[in-house]
Amino acid sequence: MIFEEKTLDSKRIYEGRIINLRVDKVTVVSGTSTREIVEHNGGSVIAAVTDDNKIIMVKQFRKPMESPILEVPAGKLDGDEDPADAALRELSEETGYTAGKLEKLTEFYPSVGYTTEVLHIYLATDLKPGACHPDENEVLEVMEMDLEEVYRMVMDGKIHDGKTIAAVMMARDKLRG
Amino acid sequence: MIFEEKTLDSKRIYEGRIINLRVDKVTVVSGTSTREIVEHNGGSVIAAVTDDNKIIMVKQFRKPMESPILEVPAGKLDGDEDPADAALRELSEETGYTAGKLEKLTEFYPSVGYTTEVLHIYLATDLKPGACHPDENEVLEVMEMDLEEVYRMVMDGKIHDGKTIAAVMMARDKLRG
Repeated sequence: MIFEEKTLDSKRIYEGRIINLRVDKVTVVSGTSTREIVEHNGGSVIAAVTDDNKIIMVKQFRKPMESPILEVPAGKLDGDEDPADAALRELSEETGYTAGKLEKLTEFYPSVGYTTEVLHIYLATDLKPGACHPDENEVLEVMEMDLEEVYRMVMDGKIHDGKTIAAVMMARDKLRG
Repeated sequence: MIFEEKTLDSKRIYEGRIINLRVDKVTVVSGTSTREIVEHNGGSVIAAVTDDNKIIMVKQFRKPMESPILEVPAGKLDGDEDPADAALRELSEETGYTAGKLEKLTEFYPSVGYTTEVLHIYLATDLKPGACHPDENEVLEVMEMDLEEVYRMVMDGKIHDGKTIAAVMMARDKLRG
């Protein structure tokens, strides 16, 4: 029943630092069409929740929005790095926290129409604070916020980062059992 | 405190059907860097829930994943179309349903690192079925599923589309009050 689009031709438009772009010529019902596809290596997302139900959040300037965005910690996989390793590494780099327990919540595609990006969401608990060591050019504000307050911000339409909405909603329900 | 990246130069790499790509040269703490930015016109996402708590879902082949994906209905804004109008239009085109009531749940960025895409999520209720009329090359399987079943699939890591995770989680909590 589901129609599959076969690739007839593929043209590489750009190979970059974080993304590549290709345009595929594909079969569609009435003949052929094109699909513009961004290639991305994927990343890990961490809902890090303390014993007293605070979630670790970061705020940073995001160029596509020309604005600071409030998010959960996250980062790209290094090559073929295991997503769980990337989650622990990014949590430590960005926030200084180490996690005694890491559970996978899900993996998802942020934008199925045009990018191959996959994000792996983890719930990190049994947290211990430490010194953060972000990349030189990664300027982050780290904060602890009440998980219930951030959940309320999601429901009030005040959290605008997709991975953060998914991570906060899923972590909260997971922790409530 | 939040560092802002000023644009020193911008190079257009590609102008396409659904996305454009540009590379900006920006100021960073230690000098300059580049930001690869996909430009996208944004879209609307519809959590359409019937009086008996079923949610309208669609399954379609997604080229970046080379696989069919189970999603809530959604679609791109036509030019400067109002997101609420786009929500009602896409719901009708893809599924045939018309909604007596439409409430905005939130708007969010699917991938803050490299794309300008914004998605507007609506909760559509007071639904009436009708004939769907998808684009000729849009091959969709439409189904009604129990909202609680889809919620369980989200929590079990079986829903892999980001906008669908956000829409299902938020619509369910909104309806539960």
